[in-house]
Amino acid sequence: MSNLLVLPDLREMLLEHDDAGLAQVVTELHPATIADFSEGLSVEETWQLLDHAPVTRQADVLAFFPPPKQVEMVSGAGRHLISKLLEAMPHDDRVEVLRQLDPEVVEDLLPLVAKADREDIRRLLSYPEDSAGAMMTTDYAWLPREITVAQAIDDLRRQASDKETIYYVYVLDENRRLLGFVSLRHLILAKPMARIADIMETEVISVRVDADREEVVKTVQRYDFLAIPVIDEQHRLVGIITHDDAIDVVVEEATEDALHQAGVASIDESYIDAPFREIWMKRAVYLAGFFVAEAVLVTSAMNHFEAAISTIVVLASFIPLCISTGGNSGAQAATLITRALAVGDVTLKDWWRVLKHELWMGLALGTTVGIVGFLFATFTSASVLEGVNRWMLALVIGQSVACICLWGTVLGSMLPLLFKRAGIDPGYASSPFVATLVDATGIIIYFTFAQLYLL
Amino acid sequence: MSNLLVLPDLREMLLEHDDAGLAQVVTELHPATIADFSEGLSVEETWQLLDHAPVTRQADVLAFFPPPKQVEMVSGAGRHLISKLLEAMPHDDRVEVLRQLDPEVVEDLLPLVAKADREDIRRLLSYPEDSAGAMMTTDYAWLPREITVAQAIDDLRRQASDKETIYYVYVLDENRRLLGFVSLRHLILAKPMARIADIMETEVISVRVDADREEVVKTVQRYDFLAIPVIDEQHRLVGIITHDDAIDVVVEEATEDALHQAGVASIDESYIDAPFREIWMKRAVYLAGFFVAEAVLVTSAMNHFEAAISTIVVLASFIPLCISTGGNSGAQAATLITRALAVGDVTLKDWWRVLKHELWMGLALGTTVGIVGFLFATFTSASVLEGVNRWMLALVIGQSVACICLWGTVLGSMLPLLFKRAGIDPGYASSPFVATLVDATGIIIYFTFAQLYLL
Repeated sequence: MSNLLVLPDLREMLLEHDDAGLAQVVTELHPATIADFSEGLSVEETWQLLDHAPVTRQADVLAFFPPPKQVEMVSGAGRHLISKLLEAMPHDDRVEVLRQLDPEVVEDLLPLVAKADREDIRRLLSYPEDSAGAMMTTDYAWLPREITVAQAIDDLRRQASDKETIYYVYVLDENRRLLGFVSLRHLILAKPMARIADIMETEVISVRVDADREEVVKTVQRYDFLAIPVIDEQHRLVGIITHDDAIDVVVEEATEDALHQAGVASIDESYIDAPFREIWMKRAVYLAGFFVAEAVLVTSAMNHFEAAISTIVVLASFIPLCISTGGNSGAQAATLITRALAVGDVTLKDWWRVLKHELWMGLALGTTVGIVGFLFATFTSASVLEGVNRWMLALVIGQSVACICLWGTVLGSMLPLLFKRAGIDPGYASSPFVATLVDATGIIIYFTFAQLYLL
Repeated sequence: MSNLLVLPDLREMLLEHDDAGLAQVVTELHPATIADFSEGLSVEETWQLLDHAPVTRQADVLAFFPPPKQVEMVSGAGRHLISKLLEAMPHDDRVEVLRQLDPEVVEDLLPLVAKADREDIRRLLSYPEDSAGAMMTTDYAWLPREITVAQAIDDLRRQASDKETIYYVYVLDENRRLLGFVSLRHLILAKPMARIADIMETEVISVRVDADREEVVKTVQRYDFLAIPVIDEQHRLVGIITHDDAIDVVVEEATEDALHQAGVASIDESYIDAPFREIWMKRAVYLAGFFVAEAVLVTSAMNHFEAAISTIVVLASFIPLCISTGGNSGAQAATLITRALAVGDVTLKDWWRVLKHELWMGLALGTTVGIVGFLFATFTSASVLEGVNRWMLALVIGQSVACICLWGTVLGSMLPLLFKRAGIDPGYASSPFVATLVDATGIIIYFTFAQLYLL
């Protein structure tokens, strides 16, 4: 990555205790850049670098480290510094760090933090991991409704330094209920003596604190919001979720979807950083699981048709073809529907529409592949023929492949919906899951046609 | 979707020409909500609704329609209205609409548009579709460096109404070269008499106009930017890309990745809206293509081992198992690496690290699955035995499955890197592609072990 060029320079500055240079690096560059640059440094070296910046800056940089390094950095800091750091960090970022620490360590640290921050941390930690509550930050800017625009801008100037954003400002009543919002752009354009209550937007789109983070992300994306307010059952504002956290979740969810699709459980760390043993476990569980399922299903189906195989050995040659057709068509359909669910093009209520669509699609695809299969079997089977009618064999292959393709398509499209209905991530319905189911049934379809025409 | 509840009401208002009600709907709701509500309306009905709003509002709503409806709406509007609409739309959104129209229609429309807008449109249309240039908007806010903060805020007040954002403001010299940037937050906090040149951030992270959109999105995501400046070779500011467009691209890219992974070419429309024939074509090409590849590769491999099958028919029962093991392990590895490439955890330079990692992983996974295979074959093969040593058969199955799993894992991890190197989307390296390759080689591995131990 980009840090390779700079790492030796940085190391040299650290060795030579070049305080001026280090201070320049750590105060002038973007926090994300500093985090990238110090990727190859040890925890001690990173602290040596960060010590040249005030604690607020240290907190900013910390938020950009990958999660495992954040934990190491926090653990490597003195107890006094940790409390100062936690107080200075954005409210959502610090909770993310604390979530990864041992709960006992957290309980040990919290008494060191100022009371208001401590209560805020405890509340945010209490929300379930995939909810809006766990994504949000509580350092939002707000205003009462009675003041004027000029007063509001003055007020924001005071709030600006420790708020996540001041571009969207929420208007609250005395019980913190959400009445409306104004953007800083509107404030700047409005007459200074206008009242906030008169210029605020009252049609506010918000999410509930217990909403799923996927729903949050869809709302932010749909409305192009900089931030979205999070409310509780009493319509009180409890936090906001900003665009940058939304984009991170989109990327995380896409990775999760892609991994589920290939039958790998979610991995929290990056591919390169995750411990070998953990990835092995997650991959092996699936491979071994699907192996057993495949073995039980397929061999029992094959046993059933042993007579057919021993009579006409050439039938065995087409087994892999039938299987792969089912697997590929099933994976295609499952992926299409999984993504359509993920981006909101399709909901559970559309199941009948999807089923009709995929029935026709399966017929169209099955016919296409069936014709290809028929032609292929006609032209190539001569060499492997042993007293079997070449046209009959081609007919068996063509029809089997067509039926298997139809079956794979329909099954592949319905499984993600069924999974979603059952509360399981529809991503799991893709590839290996469909494949295993279609493999066994594909063999039954194939040999049923073979017995019908050839025995 | 959410519009089902409101559609009848909206229809009634349109039928009764309830001008006051329609005007309220179209001016008070969020443009995205209006677009959702009018999803079920015809083009004429939608225009009847939009006619109750000024042209700037119409342009805002238009930007939130799905692309096919945008084209229909523009085609359904009068020529005079179109030009007004195009002038009022955000610069990036209007180019997106025009990109989908017939180039002849565009050439026909452009003379109606004001000269400055026309030139802007032509320039943006000239950038290749997946570049930063095609994503950016040219309506950014900018300031010269000599003025004071107070003058700058006054200036922004004038610019505010037709700029995409005024929260990030770019500082340019007389040749439009990018010198720095200030956020509105800093302007509000700064002393009114301070000079822009003294308070601006000079370490500006930007992207080149010809950069790939994936790179743009990674930068926006990494740095949590509201917007990122786009510069040309002379370091002149040519546009900005805002967070909302970045998030849209993230979702689009994730959908593309997922579709490629299952062997479906990219689909521009949503799953439900895309024409049946187009989806059929895209899916059929892959299924038929992989079918032929699979057929040619696998049957030639199988022909080679015909003697083994006809001697020991039980061998055929384990063919599907060997194949699925290869397919599943290959898809797992390919997906992991594809996603790691997409989020930037791994780059092409890491190929040796990935290969080592996956070699060890393949050994670990192969051993796991091999033991499962050995046990399975020992316990179940009694019923299908025909004079074959049960332990030898189990040994063949165990060893074959282990080797195939190792092979699938290594191949699956290297193909995405090779594809990326060759300039092909690494997503295509997943599932069906790996599966087909591993299927044929898996059969060779299996029968080679079988011949070694059993014949």
